[in-house]
Amino acid sequence: MTFPPLRPELAGIEPYGAPQLDVPVQLNVNENPYGPSEECVADIAASAAEAARTLNRYPDRELVALRAALASYLSGDVAGEIAPEQVWAANGSNEVMLQLLQAFGGPGRTALSFAPTYSMYPEYARDTMTAWVAGRREDDFSLDLDRARALVEDVRPHVVLLPSPNNPTGTALPPSAVDELCGAVGDSGIVVVDEAYGEFRRTGVPSALEQLPAHRNLVVTRTMSKAFAAAGLRLGYLAADPAICDAIRVVRLPYHLSAVTQATALAALRHAAELLGKVDELRAERDRTVDWLRDQGFEAADSDANFVLFGRFEDRHAVWKGLLDRGVLIRETGPDGWLRVSIGTGDEMIAFQKALMEVTT
Amino acid sequence: MTFPPLRPELAGIEPYGAPQLDVPVQLNVNENPYGPSEECVADIAASAAEAARTLNRYPDRELVALRAALASYLSGDVAGEIAPEQVWAANGSNEVMLQLLQAFGGPGRTALSFAPTYSMYPEYARDTMTAWVAGRREDDFSLDLDRARALVEDVRPHVVLLPSPNNPTGTALPPSAVDELCGAVGDSGIVVVDEAYGEFRRTGVPSALEQLPAHRNLVVTRTMSKAFAAAGLRLGYLAADPAICDAIRVVRLPYHLSAVTQATALAALRHAAELLGKVDELRAERDRTVDWLRDQGFEAADSDANFVLFGRFEDRHAVWKGLLDRGVLIRETGPDGWLRVSIGTGDEMIAFQKALMEVTT
Repeated sequence: MTFPPLRPELAGIEPYGAPQLDVPVQLNVNENPYGPSEECVADIAASAAEAARTLNRYPDRELVALRAALASYLSGDVAGEIAPEQVWAANGSNEVMLQLLQAFGGPGRTALSFAPTYSMYPEYARDTMTAWVAGRREDDFSLDLDRARALVEDVRPHVVLLPSPNNPTGTALPPSAVDELCGAVGDSGIVVVDEAYGEFRRTGVPSALEQLPAHRNLVVTRTMSKAFAAAGLRLGYLAADPAICDAIRVVRLPYHLSAVTQATALAALRHAAELLGKVDELRAERDRTVDWLRDQGFEAADSDANFVLFGRFEDRHAVWKGLLDRGVLIRETGPDGWLRVSIGTGDEMIAFQKALMEVTT
Repeated sequence: MTFPPLRPELAGIEPYGAPQLDVPVQLNVNENPYGPSEECVADIAASAAEAARTLNRYPDRELVALRAALASYLSGDVAGEIAPEQVWAANGSNEVMLQLLQAFGGPGRTALSFAPTYSMYPEYARDTMTAWVAGRREDDFSLDLDRARALVEDVRPHVVLLPSPNNPTGTALPPSAVDELCGAVGDSGIVVVDEAYGEFRRTGVPSALEQLPAHRNLVVTRTMSKAFAAAGLRLGYLAADPAICDAIRVVRLPYHLSAVTQATALAALRHAAELLGKVDELRAERDRTVDWLRDQGFEAADSDANFVLFGRFEDRHAVWKGLLDRGVLIRETGPDGWLRVSIGTGDEMIAFQKALMEVTT
């Protein structure tokens, strides 16, 4: 046995994460390029101070105020009402996903998604000893519903992970896919629609939140990291049947969300209008980026997110590196030959376009 | 299958956690009763504001500044030097423990501790599918080293959890126990000395940090929740061989520590002298509490922590409830017949003594 005595299946694995490099144009991790106003910063500081005055005490383990504020925010995004008991939150949606797999996955159970998709999903499965099955998306990254349903009926998964829009392709799901797969999974599993990028969806694309009343096995996850411009806050959350939230409480670590995180998130939610204020601009910039890429003769996937998957390149690493050499950091991810660029400010997208033309012509 | 489809072994389990009740005297979760000064609060607020200005960006995934500050703090507590590469941090020492068991425990592996001990340990094992073996402590809650060593040689555990001082008994380990058990475990496992309450140890009781150079399989965990008076911050950390820290990076969720948490912890560490300033007073209050309890004819375990286990009561629940009715919340935990009281302010301990006398005479 070599030292340290790491589990053998983890030996040699590199920790997950994009390179954190200090370059002028950061378009690699789908952050919102716009920081908060000084008014919002001051409110966060005041809220952190208030939390700090009783820092010697443990935080509210049940996140009562935060769950109510998140429910109220979500209720503004759908026709119906989301109740606080339907909401759960954790340190980033990746902790939400881990908790879901701890409760509903695990040894002898199976999680299913459709590739290409978010590269953390198999890691959540690995870390919870859940078997991992990946179906395939079509060439345009959509789901063939008949094939998807047949795979669900064959595999009988306990957790289906359905990002909408999908990362890294940007592809949103139609409501029929959620209906179909929730029906196929039934009461023996849950269907998690990961809407990390949900607020960037194009006009006319609905949120799966609308479908919660129809399916008690449906879980919709969200994050404050993307549209909400608060990646540094690490606040992910979900909406689902209250029984699902209660089940998660068995596996969550006690006091998992600090008093300062809860206070900061509540402050950020009070400034939702400002923090989300750039979403329309970013959606327009994304649509322009897709058009521009296609005008230059590249392929670009339709996107409902704040990033675009484009290609194809015989040597994508060389293109990625060429952009980096020009101060533009994008992400080498997704199917072979493709690259992913996050949507930044207008100036950042001009820098990206200029660098890409230099590298590829 | 009933809905929701929770793993069967989790069905019916109540979420971990002491009752969060709003009573005047809170002596149930071993918090430090003293909050931070307004100067410290202002520094935390300024640090949170600084972090908030780039809240749209992800936090430093490797916690470089925080690990350096924690290493520097620990270096002040030992003869040698603790390097930043020897330090790792997470959301509370319970996330540190979970990560350790994810990396070094898991299916087919075994974790071992000695009961009565911290009731979260078997939950960490359960949540990581690690087999759980609990040896027994002696009647005075100490370890018989020969028996402990024999059990380690028999079970061959991959993770040994050795709290020092132990919760809920307050019992510290002698350095010989750490030497002995690190030797018995060898390179096929790690020995985690949980020093959550380490700063409260009595004069002359050393920290296991001193033994890090002697044992590469030794991990010492600490928290800012107790002596550091920052339970609301949720900041746990460890010191160990850098190879152990590196191994944890494979299983940690990316960006697990928010920018605001990192900034707040750094601010709190700048005020270490103040925040730890009440430790001596709390130690003296603890020793007085042990003496007082014994003077009244109760049993009280020797304690190196900021709590005292005392008893014994034929109906400990009735005593717990009688204290609660008098506005004093303590913890019903530990071996049957015993109760645990956290050390609060002088006034709080007088209220506790008064209530206990009323209830038991």
